[in-house]
Amino acid sequence: MNTNLIILGAGGRMGSTLIRLAANSNDLTIAAAVEPKTRFVSNLPEHCVVAANLEDCIEKFPHAVIIDFTSASSTMENAKLAARYKNPLVIGTTGLNAEEKKQLAEYAKQTPIMMSPNMSVGINVLLDILPKLTAMLGADYDTELMEIHHNLKKDAPSGTALRLAEAVAEGKKTKLEDVACYHREGIIGERPANEIGIQTLRGGDVVGVHTVYYMGAGERIEITHHAHSRENFAGGALRAARWLAKQEAGRLYSMHDVLKG
Amino acid sequence: MNTNLIILGAGGRMGSTLIRLAANSNDLTIAAAVEPKTRFVSNLPEHCVVAANLEDCIEKFPHAVIIDFTSASSTMENAKLAARYKNPLVIGTTGLNAEEKKQLAEYAKQTPIMMSPNMSVGINVLLDILPKLTAMLGADYDTELMEIHHNLKKDAPSGTALRLAEAVAEGKKTKLEDVACYHREGIIGERPANEIGIQTLRGGDVVGVHTVYYMGAGERIEITHHAHSRENFAGGALRAARWLAKQEAGRLYSMHDVLKG
Amino acid sequence: MNTNLIILGAGGRMGSTLIRLAANSNDLTIAAAVEPKTRFVSNLPEHCVVAANLEDCIEKFPHAVIIDFTSASSTMENAKLAARYKNPLVIGTTGLNAEEKKQLAEYAKQTPIMMSPNMSVGINVLLDILPKLTAMLGADYDTELMEIHHNLKKDAPSGTALRLAEAVAEGKKTKLEDVACYHREGIIGERPANEIGIQTLRGGDVVGVHTVYYMGAGERIEITHHAHSRENFAGGALRAARWLAKQEAGRLYSMHDVLKG
Amino acid sequence: MNTNLIILGAGGRMGSTLIRLAANSNDLTIAAAVEPKTRFVSNLPEHCVVAANLEDCIEKFPHAVIIDFTSASSTMENAKLAARYKNPLVIGTTGLNAEEKKQLAEYAKQTPIMMSPNMSVGINVLLDILPKLTAMLGADYDTELMEIHHNLKKDAPSGTALRLAEAVAEGKKTKLEDVACYHREGIIGERPANEIGIQTLRGGDVVGVHTVYYMGAGERIEITHHAHSRENFAGGALRAARWLAKQEAGRLYSMHDVLKG
Repeated sequence: MNTNLIILGAGGRMGSTLIRLAANSNDLTIAAAVEPKTRFVSNLPEHCVVAANLEDCIEKFPHAVIIDFTSASSTMENAKLAARYKNPLVIGTTGLNAEEKKQLAEYAKQTPIMMSPNMSVGINVLLDILPKLTAMLGADYDTELMEIHHNLKKDAPSGTALRLAEAVAEGKKTKLEDVACYHREGIIGERPANEIGIQTLRGGDVVGVHTVYYMGAGERIEITHHAHSRENFAGGALRAARWLAKQEAGRLYSMHDVLKG
Repeated sequence: MNTNLIILGAGGRMGSTLIRLAANSNDLTIAAAVEPKTRFVSNLPEHCVVAANLEDCIEKFPHAVIIDFTSASSTMENAKLAARYKNPLVIGTTGLNAEEKKQLAEYAKQTPIMMSPNMSVGINVLLDILPKLTAMLGADYDTELMEIHHNLKKDAPSGTALRLAEAVAEGKKTKLEDVACYHREGIIGERPANEIGIQTLRGGDVVGVHTVYYMGAGERIEITHHAHSRENFAGGALRAARWLAKQEAGRLYSMHDVLKG
Repeated sequence: MNTNLIILGAGGRMGSTLIRLAANSNDLTIAAAVEPKTRFVSNLPEHCVVAANLEDCIEKFPHAVIIDFTSASSTMENAKLAARYKNPLVIGTTGLNAEEKKQLAEYAKQTPIMMSPNMSVGINVLLDILPKLTAMLGADYDTELMEIHHNLKKDAPSGTALRLAEAVAEGKKTKLEDVACYHREGIIGERPANEIGIQTLRGGDVVGVHTVYYMGAGERIEITHHAHSRENFAGGALRAARWLAKQEAGRLYSMHDVLKG
Repeated sequence: MNTNLIILGAGGRMGSTLIRLAANSNDLTIAAAVEPKTRFVSNLPEHCVVAANLEDCIEKFPHAVIIDFTSASSTMENAKLAARYKNPLVIGTTGLNAEEKKQLAEYAKQTPIMMSPNMSVGINVLLDILPKLTAMLGADYDTELMEIHHNLKKDAPSGTALRLAEAVAEGKKTKLEDVACYHREGIIGERPANEIGIQTLRGGDVVGVHTVYYMGAGERIEITHHAHSRENFAGGALRAARWLAKQEAGRLYSMHDVLKG
């Protein structure tokens, strides 16, 4: 089955990545590329419409799935249009406030909408698997996390590391804030059995590496996620688009729903 | 709850590892250590009985869980005794033939028996998780395996690598023999989408390293199992013993049952 | 000390990466960006000259270091100009034939020229270190290599893997062709002591991962090089440019000379 | 050339490992095994003398290399005998005080003596290589360290991690205490260029894993040392014994001298 797409922010970094990946797939067609500064859009396939805004083109493409990695205000306007024309909408925009999310949940009753702050398929699959894996391995396995990001990142550990650690804590039936350990130096004594150490490395232009360690008697398991580039997120958005094309309106969907397919 | 143990082959390498690990736990008691050459048994906790064979001591320890990593013929005799006295039995012995396994299934109707050729908790958990993980990631993720073992190992790839690869193939709804690739050299062309490459490294005294790779657009997941020592297998056997103490007789249990707990 | 640069092929993928990295450094200035299709050049710093070809701008920038990742024919013309105006020249162009390289060696007597088919600093440092490291570890350490590249790569193992393996073989005072092993499947027997296994994984869009393993009694060393992006090569070219600005003409320099600095 | 050995503490864990490794080599002969509790010595090759102390057997084996992993007081007595009989002596005993080391240096003028607190060949080779590697990569490469040890280890980071970090700092012409960072949590800001982050993981029974990261533009190098078992140290001691058999008395030798061969 072929899925028609309308790519918003088509001249930006995520937009152009979406265009490149979609053009290389054999079950996706880029119906329209939307970009206020239309001259910034490049590498478009033939027959693809270029428009300065969604309103100018949405009517021509009923059923086309809209992909929106723009800004909060722009996304709210796009969602209103999507709801009116019943086009499915994939939202990767970050920074939406509670009020805006509530409004999107309303629109989601009129047309299928999926929203995720992190479209990485790999990270979302791990978030789903880790609680089960942790519970199966059981209390005899000490669990720790390590993450690496580029040298300009200002916070530590990464938000993704914390979410992975929460998934581990869930599997251990504990709360991360009660067992997290971010600092080890000097005479620290034997490791408390339920501790979850989270350690941070910084350097170069590393996009993102996260490792979860399970260490038991005579063995250990290490699960590492490497993010190489923003294709990581674009790939997740395209997968969400394929899935969303087959859904009904109802509630606001998440990446978890997409993966459960 | 405390679990009483009878360790068979207590003077051998696996037996002495079981004794050491059990002595260090706080919910296991070594009731008896069985070893024909009794002088080879060392490092036993106080009050522990040493016997030359199971028959001499089983009567004194009703309900004690017997752990047997010996030989096929010895295991069959031990199982007969376990069935008669209703003692639970954990079997890690390898090389049992079909006839013997059938007989063990009969004994398992009289007393709880668990048998596994590989007691590693980590490997068994991965065998359980990989089909689901593979299916969730989907066809966009190229999957490959790599294994490392010591330089004396004569076969390649390892049996464990093949079982992990089969778990991946199951998740991809394909058969390993149709998609496995063991050899890459020269002009091999683009990688077929459904291929599963299995590559082998050999060196030093590495006990066993297995890595499964999932490689997609802009990201990859690597899952590595490191076996350090035979404590890997002893730890799994003790976990099985704790679990088996609470089971009823019925059918021959596997490590999968133990982990499902 | 500040170094002036002339970037050739400034509208291409490598050219634009060079421009971005140089603009972010604090000791490099982009004097001119050369690109026949001048409209393709973007993200240039202020005051930077844009020219359709080197001849139009070289005279204005004596001493500026020229960086050339173009094509063989274009590079030969550029080198002639560089030699005439005594501008240092960094060449990352591949596919030059023996005749062309000989001509470049002649030009190198008139102006400093550095040429390398792989500008990666990391790989070149490893090529330098591995023979010594291998010799120090000695014959008790089994050495193996593993490489991962994207699923479109047609040859195996990678050229870089072979060069790394040759560096290892040099350290073992043997020839790679006599000891390389690319295929392990079935009953392969114990590993010959002097063998060098080279195994290949393929998947996703991995830019390039190479690991060298040294495995001995009770320990192993793993040295991994991850290439994330072409900034890998651009960074090496800029480092070469800084170094070349301080050299005299004489012979054709290599990345090895740059690193020995 | 065959080397005769006298193994001290032959009934202990390190002694029995030395015996096993030496018995498996083809250029080492165990002339004598020394152990006060002689009944604890096992797995000895035929024709090997067992003695309760060194004095009882040293005269019979001129030139045999003595390997001593015992206690400080015992080592001092053994060294006096070695000096008197001119037998080479490898010392792996830890906890010797300054006075004792001074006395050993005196003995070293009479017979070849080598002493090292960490006999791991891999770690010693890395300590030798890292300053050069760090200097070659240069200031553009952010360097960090990570270490993993078992959950009973009481100090962090490990002594080995600190020595590796000092080797990196030496390569960066800085002092570790001025640039080490052991704690990252919260809003830490951009990474200072000369920082060396050292992060610690704890879990299971991991013998020791140390990784050094070099992260630059578009690439990174990771160098990992895995210690699996005490064979790591025994292997280094046997290598030292082979080397020491060919040396003259003079000064107290180190593992660095052995590797330089």
